[in-house]
Amino acid sequence: MENVVFFQNSKAIALGKLFPDKKINNKLTILNFRTLKKSSSRDITFFDSSHYENDAIKTKAACCITNEKLSIHLPKNCIKIIVKNVLFEVAKILKKIYPAADIDTLDIFLKKPNKLKFPKVKFGNNVLLGKNVKIGKNSVIGNNVIIESNVLMGKNSVIGSNIHIKNTVIGDNVVIQSGCMIGLKGFGFIPMKDKNLKMPHIGKVLIDDHVEIASNCTIDRGSVDDTVIGKNTYLDNQVHVAHNVKIGKNCMIAGQVGFAGSSTLGDNVSIGGQAGVSGHLKIGNNVKIGGGSGVVKNIEDNSIVMGYPAIPFKKFIKNSKK
Amino acid sequence: MENVVFFQNSKAIALGKLFPDKKINNKLTILNFRTLKKSSSRDITFFDSSHYENDAIKTKAACCITNEKLSIHLPKNCIKIIVKNVLFEVAKILKKIYPAADIDTLDIFLKKPNKLKFPKVKFGNNVLLGKNVKIGKNSVIGNNVIIESNVLMGKNSVIGSNIHIKNTVIGDNVVIQSGCMIGLKGFGFIPMKDKNLKMPHIGKVLIDDHVEIASNCTIDRGSVDDTVIGKNTYLDNQVHVAHNVKIGKNCMIAGQVGFAGSSTLGDNVSIGGQAGVSGHLKIGNNVKIGGGSGVVKNIEDNSIVMGYPAIPFKKFIKNSKK
Amino acid sequence: MENVVFFQNSKAIALGKLFPDKKINNKLTILNFRTLKKSSSRDITFFDSSHYENDAIKTKAACCITNEKLSIHLPKNCIKIIVKNVLFEVAKILKKIYPAADIDTLDIFLKKPNKLKFPKVKFGNNVLLGKNVKIGKNSVIGNNVIIESNVLMGKNSVIGSNIHIKNTVIGDNVVIQSGCMIGLKGFGFIPMKDKNLKMPHIGKVLIDDHVEIASNCTIDRGSVDDTVIGKNTYLDNQVHVAHNVKIGKNCMIAGQVGFAGSSTLGDNVSIGGQAGVSGHLKIGNNVKIGGGSGVVKNIEDNSIVMGYPAIPFKKFIKNSKK
Repeated sequence: MENVVFFQNSKAIALGKLFPDKKINNKLTILNFRTLKKSSSRDITFFDSSHYENDAIKTKAACCITNEKLSIHLPKNCIKIIVKNVLFEVAKILKKIYPAADIDTLDIFLKKPNKLKFPKVKFGNNVLLGKNVKIGKNSVIGNNVIIESNVLMGKNSVIGSNIHIKNTVIGDNVVIQSGCMIGLKGFGFIPMKDKNLKMPHIGKVLIDDHVEIASNCTIDRGSVDDTVIGKNTYLDNQVHVAHNVKIGKNCMIAGQVGFAGSSTLGDNVSIGGQAGVSGHLKIGNNVKIGGGSGVVKNIEDNSIVMGYPAIPFKKFIKNSKK
Repeated sequence: MENVVFFQNSKAIALGKLFPDKKINNKLTILNFRTLKKSSSRDITFFDSSHYENDAIKTKAACCITNEKLSIHLPKNCIKIIVKNVLFEVAKILKKIYPAADIDTLDIFLKKPNKLKFPKVKFGNNVLLGKNVKIGKNSVIGNNVIIESNVLMGKNSVIGSNIHIKNTVIGDNVVIQSGCMIGLKGFGFIPMKDKNLKMPHIGKVLIDDHVEIASNCTIDRGSVDDTVIGKNTYLDNQVHVAHNVKIGKNCMIAGQVGFAGSSTLGDNVSIGGQAGVSGHLKIGNNVKIGGGSGVVKNIEDNSIVMGYPAIPFKKFIKNSKK
Repeated sequence: MENVVFFQNSKAIALGKLFPDKKINNKLTILNFRTLKKSSSRDITFFDSSHYENDAIKTKAACCITNEKLSIHLPKNCIKIIVKNVLFEVAKILKKIYPAADIDTLDIFLKKPNKLKFPKVKFGNNVLLGKNVKIGKNSVIGNNVIIESNVLMGKNSVIGSNIHIKNTVIGDNVVIQSGCMIGLKGFGFIPMKDKNLKMPHIGKVLIDDHVEIASNCTIDRGSVDDTVIGKNTYLDNQVHVAHNVKIGKNCMIAGQVGFAGSSTLGDNVSIGGQAGVSGHLKIGNNVKIGGGSGVVKNIEDNSIVMGYPAIPFKKFIKNSKK
């Protein structure tokens, strides 16, 4: 499931062409842009925060966009592209390799489902499927649903109505209620006066078995990495999950909760309604976050927090009594 | 309006079959699962919180799932099913009686509207209606709208586009703007490792006359009870109303407000944008709740509150000046 | 772009007919209802808050609905209609001039796009266009999209799927992701027992070049004035923009942010996720508002604020450490 790739480049690209200003042997070529962790020796990657030092040390990538300071952590045989603004360079290179990943334009392969290809799937009215879509047996797709090319869905899953899904892998026994928008490009760009540089999003959304996602949720696909909803995790209505967020197993996320990009949640986490989790945080296992909280720091396993900013629950109650 | 029932079982079920582990005379039968208040002598009910003691004393139900401690409040002739985890047992029994109420799968009766049946209703493009849908004269239905079986709608009501409605009764002169999802299953389940037990939702949504609901709102149907939006109450965009919430008459609910399950609001309540109301609360008449507040306690009639957690408005202003 | 008008009355109306209880020479006629600023000598306007004193002094309107106290600021030759409840009178008069502006009913001109008229536009499936819709070359419209009469859209713009747009002018190179509802009537009414008086909304939404609006956002059209999203401003998922809000250029608005009506933002403003901005505020240029903040006061240029209510960021951090 995690190895499915939506944006796949299959033609070798000379590194010298990607970086015309750098002196690089033009015989060196790469295929794809991947994370530090997932890169093979034919891939290019990036490294822009010391959070990812452990991944950097072990990366197999042929080449890495990074800055002077971080570059020392990379393996010797990894070609370093040293720049000042790593994400700006990443956006430019991604756009060169995957020119269609920065704007979600129309999937031209969309067609009404060929029922011979899906004899055991029930379809509502006005369903459109892209090419290579796979849907497991006994799954049900509602009305006015768009499932774009290469989306994979397991068996016994139920998709509601008025839904748009792309760049997503869905497991078995998943329920997605009406009005959800899943796998669209996330909120990523390099601010530039009068014309921002849009960050191409080449990741996907992974929705594991037994997940339930209620009405009008939005789950953006990952930028380079993936967005993940773990097994048996339930999301209530109007939850917003930004790019690269990883939610563990058996979590309960109440209505209108929002996650900024790249945060990671453990298993058995429960979050009350309207809480918000800032970007790039690590929330441990068995954490409980009270409704309306604003989480701005990492949270250790088994903690209970509440408040804005979120603090240990007992302290919050004490402060509230003042 | 409140007597309409969407999940109706019409074949007597032996209590002994529902509870094979209990010793129950198999000649005793029930028809439906109802609330303590609405049960007749042919119904089964449940009682899991002392909040509902007054209803328990007066219930006419033939049988009640409850725990040891609460069972003393039930009438003598009501058969008590004593269990440790009341909601877990309720979920299992509901699933037995109403096997299709725990996942919102495709309504197979959906068809384009037969205009002969609705001579005085205007329909947009791509409308789908289930069986037994009733729509009053001079009502207007937009485009890409799904109205599932047995939904009732009064006259002079205007439904926008890209909307999904099920298990709902709508009054006269109601306006529902585009993107709303109404009457879908709420966020209810018994957490279980790797495979939660979904709580079947057999209630409905009641939307009274002159209500206005703005774009992209989500209003879940009740679990056993109903979700209610009272007469002349207006909801702004992106409001989330969870199962069993009851909102009174003449209320004003601003954008992005969220209600957790089973709270009750009086009449003439106004709530500012992004406020949240926790579950199982009682908000009185003429209450004003400031924008962004988090309400975690009952609120008396005529109060003005603000803050997170919400406190009397004057105190909030005083605290803010510190 | 700003001069486009959706609700246009072209037949002179005698002022005496609009205000039968006032003694007005019946030969005086007006055409349209406009803001103080935009009124010409054939228009009627309203003035209900001292915030707009500067506009009142210079208005060219033939007639103005106002109260006793404010009326002194209006030009001598402007006919003053003095009332106690200005907005109540405005709602009644708007309803007389524009009887269809208070409920978003079905656009009867919607049709599948005539591809001969749009040779350079790509359309998905089930698109409906009203009359006089203009779409620039190389623009792309997704599936299940409704674009109502008189909407204008520039070139190279990409509209996702399951979207409803009306009363809106969209620039070039704009991206709108799936599930957005744009240009619908805002949340405005005069509260009245059992039957509120709906405020007709005759304004529009202006979306300037290079704007990006992510999934499931709602942007209401202006009431008398317009709602504006400035050039190169980006909105993340599930943002709610109420009527008459004006957002400047190059702003970044994160997920689930909400704006109450009639606030104005400068350029280069960035707002973190789930923050809320109250109504009728003025937020300066280069302001940064932290995630989850509740802004209830005007904010000066170059400020950084956070908190609920929002205060200077340094003070918020200091308070949080208590």
